[in-house]
This record gives sequence, C-alpha cells and structure tokens, in this order.
Amino acid sequence: MTDDRPLVLSLPAPRTLELIFSPEALAKLHRRYEVHEAATLADVPDAALARARYLLGQPPVTEDALARMTALRCVFNVEGNLLDNMPYPRLFERGIHVVTTAQVFALPVAEIGLALALDLLREVTEADLAFREGREVWGLEGNRAARLLSGAEVGMIGYGELGRALHRLLQGFRPRLRVFDPWLPASVIAEAGAEPADLDTVLRQSDVVFVVAAVTSENQRFLGAPAFASMRPGAAFILLSRADVVDFDALIDAVAAGHLRAASDVFPEEPMPRDHRVRGLRGFLRSAHRAGALDLAFRRMGDMVLEDMELLDRGLPPQRCKRAERETVARMRSKPVSAN
Amino acid sequence: MTDDRPLVLSLPAPRTLELIFSPEALAKLHRRYEVHEAATLADVPDAALARARYLLGQPPVTEDALARMTALRCVFNVEGNLLDNMPYPRLFERGIHVVTTAQVFALPVAEIGLALALDLLREVTEADLAFREGREVWGLEGNRAARLLSGAEVGMIGYGELGRALHRLLQGFRPRLRVFDPWLPASVIAEAGAEPADLDTVLRQSDVVFVVAAVTSENQRFLGAPAFASMRPGAAFILLSRADVVDFDALIDAVAAGHLRAASDVFPEEPMPRDHRVRGLRGFLRSAHRAGALDLAFRRMGDMVLEDMELLDRGLPPQRCKRAERETVARMRSKPVSAN
Amino acid sequence: MTDDRPLVLSLPAPRTLELIFSPEALAKLHRRYEVHEAATLADVPDAALARARYLLGQPPVTEDALARMTALRCVFNVEGNLLDNMPYPRLFERGIHVVTTAQVFALPVAEIGLALALDLLREVTEADLAFREGREVWGLEGNRAARLLSGAEVGMIGYGELGRALHRLLQGFRPRLRVFDPWLPASVIAEAGAEPADLDTVLRQSDVVFVVAAVTSENQRFLGAPAFASMRPGAAFILLSRADVVDFDALIDAVAAGHLRAASDVFPEEPMPRDHRVRGLRGFLRSAHRAGALDLAFRRMGDMVLEDMELLDRGLPPQRCKRAERETVARMRSKPVSAN
Amino acid sequence: MTDDRPLVLSLPAPRTLELIFSPEALAKLHRRYEVHEAATLADVPDAALARARYLLGQPPVTEDALARMTALRCVFNVEGNLLDNMPYPRLFERGIHVVTTAQVFALPVAEIGLALALDLLREVTEADLAFREGREVWGLEGNRAARLLSGAEVGMIGYGELGRALHRLLQGFRPRLRVFDPWLPASVIAEAGAEPADLDTVLRQSDVVFVVAAVTSENQRFLGAPAFASMRPGAAFILLSRADVVDFDALIDAVAAGHLRAASDVFPEEPMPRDHRVRGLRGFLRSAHRAGALDLAFRRMGDMVLEDMELLDRGLPPQRCKRAERETVARMRSKPVSAN
Repeated sequence: MTDDRPLVLSLPAPRTLELIFSPEALAKLHRRYEVHEAATLADVPDAALARARYLLGQPPVTEDALARMTALRCVFNVEGNLLDNMPYPRLFERGIHVVTTAQVFALPVAEIGLALALDLLREVTEADLAFREGREVWGLEGNRAARLLSGAEVGMIGYGELGRALHRLLQGFRPRLRVFDPWLPASVIAEAGAEPADLDTVLRQSDVVFVVAAVTSENQRFLGAPAFASMRPGAAFILLSRADVVDFDALIDAVAAGHLRAASDVFPEEPMPRDHRVRGLRGFLRSAHRAGALDLAFRRMGDMVLEDMELLDRGLPPQRCKRAERETVARMRSKPVSAN
Repeated sequence: MTDDRPLVLSLPAPRTLELIFSPEALAKLHRRYEVHEAATLADVPDAALARARYLLGQPPVTEDALARMTALRCVFNVEGNLLDNMPYPRLFERGIHVVTTAQVFALPVAEIGLALALDLLREVTEADLAFREGREVWGLEGNRAARLLSGAEVGMIGYGELGRALHRLLQGFRPRLRVFDPWLPASVIAEAGAEPADLDTVLRQSDVVFVVAAVTSENQRFLGAPAFASMRPGAAFILLSRADVVDFDALIDAVAAGHLRAASDVFPEEPMPRDHRVRGLRGFLRSAHRAGALDLAFRRMGDMVLEDMELLDRGLPPQRCKRAERETVARMRSKPVSAN
Repeated sequence: MTDDRPLVLSLPAPRTLELIFSPEALAKLHRRYEVHEAATLADVPDAALARARYLLGQPPVTEDALARMTALRCVFNVEGNLLDNMPYPRLFERGIHVVTTAQVFALPVAEIGLALALDLLREVTEADLAFREGREVWGLEGNRAARLLSGAEVGMIGYGELGRALHRLLQGFRPRLRVFDPWLPASVIAEAGAEPADLDTVLRQSDVVFVVAAVTSENQRFLGAPAFASMRPGAAFILLSRADVVDFDALIDAVAAGHLRAASDVFPEEPMPRDHRVRGLRGFLRSAHRAGALDLAFRRMGDMVLEDMELLDRGLPPQRCKRAERETVARMRSKPVSAN
Repeated sequence: MTDDRPLVLSLPAPRTLELIFSPEALAKLHRRYEVHEAATLADVPDAALARARYLLGQPPVTEDALARMTALRCVFNVEGNLLDNMPYPRLFERGIHVVTTAQVFALPVAEIGLALALDLLREVTEADLAFREGREVWGLEGNRAARLLSGAEVGMIGYGELGRALHRLLQGFRPRLRVFDPWLPASVIAEAGAEPADLDTVLRQSDVVFVVAAVTSENQRFLGAPAFASMRPGAAFILLSRADVVDFDALIDAVAAGHLRAASDVFPEEPMPRDHRVRGLRGFLRSAHRAGALDLAFRRMGDMVLEDMELLDRGLPPQRCKRAERETVARMRSKPVSAN
C-alpha cells in the first residue's frame, strides 16, 4: 500500500528532529509527510530516493544519489554552515532550492552582541567583580572610562540577517551606523537606514565595531594588526560571527596594549586551551560560543521548514528560509558544526 | 557702575560650575549674565538678592531671603533631588519656577539598565568569569537558562524621564511592556505605546521588571517580600532609581532562594559594608551607583540651564528642564547628594 | 442632606456635555461628582461656588466669583481657545490649574494635513476632476509636476501637540524635517528627531511647509508676501492652525502667480464670502475648517477631563490635559469658538 | 581592435535609455560597458550575442538566440511586467538571473495610495469641490462621515515591495494591519509587524483595504461582488496594482449602492471610454494610472541596474533588483507596457 503523502528524507545530524522541531511541529511534519530517517543517503532505498520531495539535513550527496532523487524540490540545511559536500551546480541547474535556517540565530546573537557592547562601554562585568571583592568605586569616580552607545558612531562589518537584527535592536540608540558589506549594493544599505562605507572608514571612524560577516574564502583573517591599529583608541570591538575572520593573536595584542576593548563569542579553537592568555586578559569579555545556541532558536528551525515546505508543496518558491546562492555557496568556509 | 546683565546667584554645591558647564557653556553663562557665586545665601548682599533673576543650586532659602529676591524667576536645581529646604508654597505662589536637570541622567541610566537586564538574561558576567577560570561551558549546554528579551513581557514601575528613555531603547526588542505609574493617566501610558497596568499585574506577568520610580513619601519600601514572591520564577528584577523603594533584604532573600535574578545600581547604604552578603550573592549583579554619573551627563546640565534661561529672559516659560510640581514637591524623599 | 461627592460646575457652552462626553463617560462623571450645570457663573449660588472643586468650561469669571470658589482646583477649558475672561494671575497665584483639551484635535488635523500635502504633491483632486470631465492625462504625461514626500525637505512652523502628531505621521516618509518654534529650546526639537531652524531657513529650504503654530499677540500675520516670495518655486504650503498667522491675500497672490501651491483648513472669515476669489483658485486646496471637528475628537475631551479629575482628586497634578502657562496665557489671540 | 569592456545588449523598448538612466548614470554605463543597442535580437550580430554579459530590456528571445548568448549572466527587465516571451526554464537552468526594476514604483504608488485613502476617509476632494461651488459645510456638520486612519483596521491584499512600502508609510498611524498574501509564510508577515490573515478576514474586518497584489493566472477577477458585499459598510477600497484582479463592474456597483467608497489608479481599459459611468460616480476617486509613473522613479532604474551589474561583474549574485522566480514567472499576467 502506498503512502500518498510527499516524502521527506531526514538526515539532520548532528542536529536531531527533536532539537529543531517542537513536539507540535514534529507532529505536523509527520501528519503531512512521510518521513524517512536515515544516517546516510547510502542507507536510503532507491524507491525512497525517487520519491523524496525534500531532503532535511546536510549529508554528503553524490552525483549519483542526486540523479536518483528525481522528485527533489529543496534541500533544507539546518546547520547554518554550508559544507562543500553536495554537487551544488547540479542542484541549481535542476532548480532545486538549497535553503538554510541559520537566521534563527540572528536575534539571539544580536541580543548578546548588544549586551557585550554595552558591557564594554560601561564596564558592567568589571564593576560587578570589583564590587564582589570590595574594591568598587562609587559614582562618578568609578565611571571615568564610561561612554554612551546613544549617538555613538557604530560600524558593522557584514550586513546579513545578523547585521539587520542587530541594527533593529540598536534603533532606540539612534547611532550613526556605517556598514561595510562588499556583497551588497550601497543603496540597499542606505535604504535600511545605515551608511554604506568602505572597511577602512568603518574601522577608523567607529566607537564600536561589530563583526557579523560570514567567513568566506576571501575574508579569512582579513582583520589583523593593521586593522586594529587603525581603530580609535578605546574603541570597542565585538566579534560575533566566526573567529576565522580575524587574526586572533593580533586582536589580543591590541587589547593587551590597551588600545582596544573587545568581546568575542567565537574563538580560533573551541574550547580554548586551559592556559590561553585570553582567559585572564583585562579589557576582553569572553563568551563560549553561547550567542546563538538557545533551545528556543533551534526550535524555530522546524517551524521555518514547515512553512517553506507548504509553499513548495503548492509549487511556490520558499520564502521563509534563506536560499543559498549559486555564486556564493562555494565561497563559504565555516567549519562543520560538531555539536549543537 | 551698574552691570545691566541679569544676575545669576550661583550656589550649586555639592556640584561645581565646572562639573555642570562645559568650558564653552560656562563662557556663555558669564557673557550673558553677571554670576554671583556664594557658599550660602546668607553671604549674598541684599543688592544682589534684589537683582537675582535666577538661583542656580539648591541652598537652603529662608522666607526672608526669598522675600528679598524680588526679581527671581526661576530656581535651577542641578542635583536631581528636591530637598525640603525652601519655602516652596511661596515660590509657586509667586510664579517662580523650580526646575531640575535630573533628566540628564535618564539616558545613561537607561543604557546601563538595558545592559544589566541583558546580562541577567544571558549570564554575560557569570559566563565571562567562568571562562576566566577555565570552567566555561560551550554552546547550547552553557545556555540552558538563557532567555531572549525580544518578545518578552516587560514591566516598568514608574514612567518618568528614565522610564521613557528606557522604553525608547527597548523599541527594537518589540517587548510587551506594562507600566505601573500611579501619577499618570492610563491613556498617557497607552499613547506612549505601553500598557497601563496595576502593580500586581506588572509583578506577576513580567519576565523582566525595571524599577524606575522616584522615591516618595508614599512608596518607601513598597516592594517587599510579598511583591517578590508574586513574581515569576527566574524573572529578572532591575533596580535603577533609589534603593528606598524596595525592602532590600527581602530582595536579597528572593535572589538567594533562587526565585529571582536581580541587578541594582543603588543600595541602602552607599558604600555598602565591606562584608555585606550582597557582595557574594550569585544571581545578583552589582553596580556602585554608576548608572548616571557620567561626565557627559553632568555637562549637559549647563546647556539645559542656558536654554531655559534664554526662554525665561524672553518672558517665556522654561521648556528644557523639568518643573517641580506644587503638589508633589513635598512628597519627594531622596537623600541629599553627598558626592557627584 | 449633603452630597459628599466633589462638585463640578459645568458651563461648557458653546459645547455641551453630550458633545464632549460619551454616554459612558457622562455616567461616570455623574457617578463620581455632583454636577451643577449653569448658563453663567452669576446663576450659581454661593454654596455651590464654595464647594466647586472643578470648573468645566470657560465662562467669564470675575475676581469676586473666583474669591468665592475657595475649593477650586482646576479649570477645564474644553474649547481649545483661551479667552481673556478670567483673572488668570490670581488663578496661578492660588495654584489653580487651567487646562485645555485642545490636543484632541491634534491627530485629526495632522491626518488631514498629510492628506492635503500629498494631494498638492500628486494633484489628486485636480486629477480626479479632470477624469470626471474626460480630460485626464494618463501615466507619465499626467505626472510631470508630481513629486514625492519621501525624502523631501519639510518645514514646520510651530511644534506643539499638532506639530508632534504630524511629525509622527510623517515618520514613514523619512523626511528631512526642519522646525521653527520660538517657544522651544533647540535641543528639545533635536531630541524629537527634527532640526531646529530659524523661520527664514524653514521657508527657503522646504519643499513642503506646514503651519501649525497657535496665533499669539506676536505672530499675527507674520507670514506675508516676503515670506512667500522666499519659498521655493512650486513648494507646497499647508495652513492648519489659524488663518490669522498669515496675510491671506498675499498667500492667494503667491498661488495665483503660480509660485506656490497651497492648502488651507482655516480662513480669515468663516464662512468665506460666496464670491471670494479663493474659491476658484487653481493650485489651492480648500477645507472648510473640517480638520479637527470630528465627533470622535470631541468625545475624547470628556475622557481626558475624567482622567485628570481623578489625579487631582488624589492631590496630584493633572497630566492628561495641557496646562495653560502663566507667561503665555495672555498672549493667545484665537477667536472665540462660535460653533463646534 | 577589441573592446575588453563587458558587453551590454540594450533593447529597453518601450522604455529608452534616457528615461531610465540619469545623464550621470548613462555616462557610467558607457564608461564601464560596451553598449550594443538594437531594436530586436535578430538585428544583433552573432559576435555580439556571444559576448553579451547582460541583456537590458525584455525583447522576445528565442531558444536559438539564447543558445548563442553563451556569456549571458543576467536579463534586466526594466518594464515591471514579465511577458512570456523568453525560454525562462532554459535561463534558470543556466543560472542566468532575470531581474526586474519594478520596485522603483513601490514608493510613488504607496504615497498616492495613502493620499487616496486619506482622501476617502476625509472627503478631501469632495469638500474642495463643494467649496469651489459655494456649497461647503463648515466644521463638525461638514464632517459627519469623516473617520481617522490612526487606529483603524487596515487590510492589505498582497505584500510585495509595494505592500511593504505602504506599510512603512502607515507606521505613524499605528494601524491594526492584516495582510493576505498566499505566496508568503505567515511568520514573514508577522515579523514585518502585520497580522497574517485569510482573504475573507481581511475583507470583513477592515475599515480600509489596499489591493497591492500582482495579477497572476490565479487571481484574475478574484475580487467580485461577494467580496465587496462582505466588506464593512462605508469601508474604503483602494486599488493600486492592476485592474484585472477585480471585477470592476461589481466594484462600481458597490460604490454606486453606497456600500463602499473606492479609489483606483488602474482601470480595465486605459484610457477608459469617454462616457463610462465611473467618471461621474460619487464616492469613487479616480487616478489615471499616474501612481508610479514619475520621472524620478524611472531614473532610479538605471542606478539599480548599474549596482547589480557591478556585483555580477565580480561574480556575485544581484541584490538590488528583484529576481524573477522559476516557479512564478509563468504565472504573471500583466498586460504589456504600451507607454511609459
């Protein structure tokens, strides 16, 4: 007896369906679709490959397997990183969408990004520590280095989902926001209410710089010692996307020298060595890749997937998840997600 | 030889003119006005009293001295606290304005208030400390208690300048904001985009509560153990205005019991005793009355004073500083400012 | 038998209680207060004068009558215009509030103000008329004089309740807004997100000028031929407050000459003479003092009055209605309201 | 001698390069690219076809011609309508982008859309006409049918570029906005600050309905007599996209019967017959397809084209113009643009 529900191939490892779907959403998925779970595509019988309308996850896909998936409409990547493990050109040729759900992390990361920036400007963590230890300084005297975010000159490197989420959170501060994003036309940035700028201007003219750019084949370690040296003394540098876009040692040197304050949620090694000098570095605020990893964020992935499946079922293009682009998919260089 | 510039009596202690005026503003003050500085009104000669158009500061004023100040148009209180050391009824009767410049603190306090809230929701300080000590937890596992401010239910107790400044900063988070302020009509709160609510509702229905109410003869310690018990488990309580509105011991108990997280910029004694239990309290974020005391904030006072003097010189009412009200001036119960 | 409800003296003519209170609000008024209605204060017995806590309306008040009203806390002016028919200095001396409900008109006037501006920029009325008569011009050819409001330079003369309401409606257009208001400090205008400017700059640099200033003893006919001549050719001039602030003939001349487009809701005579040249004037959009006079606006008055009475009953100052100012009450020069 | 600038094939008829490029932009186009102008693709020599990186315009393209255009990266459609005159499946297979510049019209149309809505709510045009003819009614009496947009329930049918632009203009009015758009997931609409709703709810629950949906093979005449009958008496219906989505006769009937007020910028025949009953219809506001056709709008097209060409030159995907979608391109049913 055949099932006339469309078939979803589910290989979301290292995620699990339970992580990315709420119980209600998972029930809906099973109600609407036949869900075939597998560890690798090699385990999937030809009949299921032939019927698969959606592939949920980012397993390695061979040309051969893809050729057998004749009904495939969309690959739902629920990791956020695009690995180079599928024949993307063929997917795009066939008009099969490749979409990611990474934007669920934009808001949680943006919120902690703002928290880190305000902490650096007002020394919230340092002041709390001093208070614990009985060496707090009261009032104006304890505030000599404090600055406001309102009206500050803010720079953003990258202006994707995360940058936009952060921009929205910053609205009430009415900052002067300059954005460097070489993948966007200047007018798109301007319409969003920011000033398009080159990298050098963003670095030199900002009191606070947020790095929210994805790491690509072109921007690895593009922020190094000269970049940090060009920044304003005392400026705050907040790294939210991937450690690989900066020369981390140079960043640490700039903070150690007292030139910058910095905060980072990402590190060149995760976890960092137990005795790494960043652990005791004054003027540096540390977050152990906790910015996006909220239960609530993962759970939204399943909702997004279901919304786009519903459009695709009706022959419409997906509008909820973000589509990978033929031109840029091969430039992405994030490391695989090893844990959630 | 007479000076035909209007006369300003300057008694801003414990502030100084240099603290509250930028060099440019101070030059402008002296250019436009004859400035008579004194330590007490008793030191001021009758001729100066008689000519004084403005009183800058909050020195004790006797009925007699006031009677001699026949040209007085406005008292510029640059402390923020209204002491009960002037014959206010007589001032109001004569149509002499009493204005304060306390709103310069609204924005700096609002910014750190948001920082404290985000820190509590994401455990920024705790996570940094753990990282320093090599006991950080990475990713999702380190985030089990983390919550978003976006979309949270937020309560505000008080909705004066500080509450409004905080509300503006919160805009990008699109919170559901409930406000309790018994001195404001419900429709004023609703027009500002918040929901008027009674105190009980604000306490019971909020994930985050900001206390931004001035302390008055009526609300001392009005937030005690029952109030804290009525709050949601795990809710964040951020105290930004004055310690006297809460029963501080009860607050500490609620945090110690794990029922609430809290942050405070104000304390019942400042400085707090060296061995006070709040210093080591987990789940409590401490700031040593540093929220508003920024150089930059004090400097804005002088600009505000000059703008309103200019209106008053033209026979117009002041619009920049905040006016004390006949009805409420006597209810204010903040302690004197002992330092800046 | 005595009534222990506070007493309200009601003399709202030419308004009526039914106009300004919804049935529910009127019921609430009667439930909370003893309402003594009268045609003139002379008709009110001394006992009622002595007990009156609130005066609703703007009847002539003599020094003598005021002296008898020993319990008076607030005069609720429900007209919007402040006539010179009360001993204001004595009221202020005694700390009796004088408040107005005119801000109910701000939003309705702002909405039609924006409608008039957009109509002038896009010739909506002219195009509809042409279409009726079969002489419409389609597409680009019919649009040669059309302009966008988005991104335009907009000027505002006056920045009270009406100006602020209009500013809020304009937000989505992201205009560059310059404001001239001599009663406000520059920094107050700047904080509201507009640029403070002098009158000359506002006139010379705007594509659209809104006049939303109250008429005072100082600004009668302050906008005349030289002002109009200084404006940009083709600029739009929208008059929303009172006709007396402009030299109406000069305005008509500027439109007749093709120099400006204009719209007005107010006229030097209301109604205007049947054969007045403004009736047939091309480039002039006419509204017969309909901007604020909406049922719904009048009905809000009663709600405002009740909200402030409730605060005043509790010994607090009114926060909902707008307070007349000791300094400016005597400068107001609007004509009496003859009809609603 | 060869030209090593990339080649642009220019066939923008019925537009012209001068209409869509400002002089500066046109100079830049010629500086960066070799521009080959032609009336039809058949006129273009094979060598130029082979070198063409961009096709500017929407001429008929045969399979054969496309096969010869081996370097083609993008088709820039500068009409706004997608005709069925190219082998779209082949274009998408080859990864050639098809983009449109129609969003230049979004803002001008949104502005006049708001103008039309406000006019209907306040009877601006009717009142001006009455004034011209000496039959105006002053004040409250002239306003019995007037309503506010602020706080009204607003419905939108379609939520593409135009819907979003209109939504932004409406922000200051704080409407309750319900959106019906079957091509978008509900959460996308919700994140934009509107309520996703089905068509029936939008029709039944709105005081003002804006139709901003493109016409497709599925929605022709989908708004007919039953739809209009389900709307609130006195509701305002504003048609901004294409006449074909409504049964125009039924719309006219609903207005003639006094059930609705309506405004339209588009008509089933353009121009409409001289004696069509819509010309004299009371309660109907007419605009002769003038909403988007502003010089300024056309001129932005060239800027958009240049920005995306610059990205495409660098091997990046276009981000400025709107991409046609493989799934929906064949569903579009707008008529060809016959004039500008």
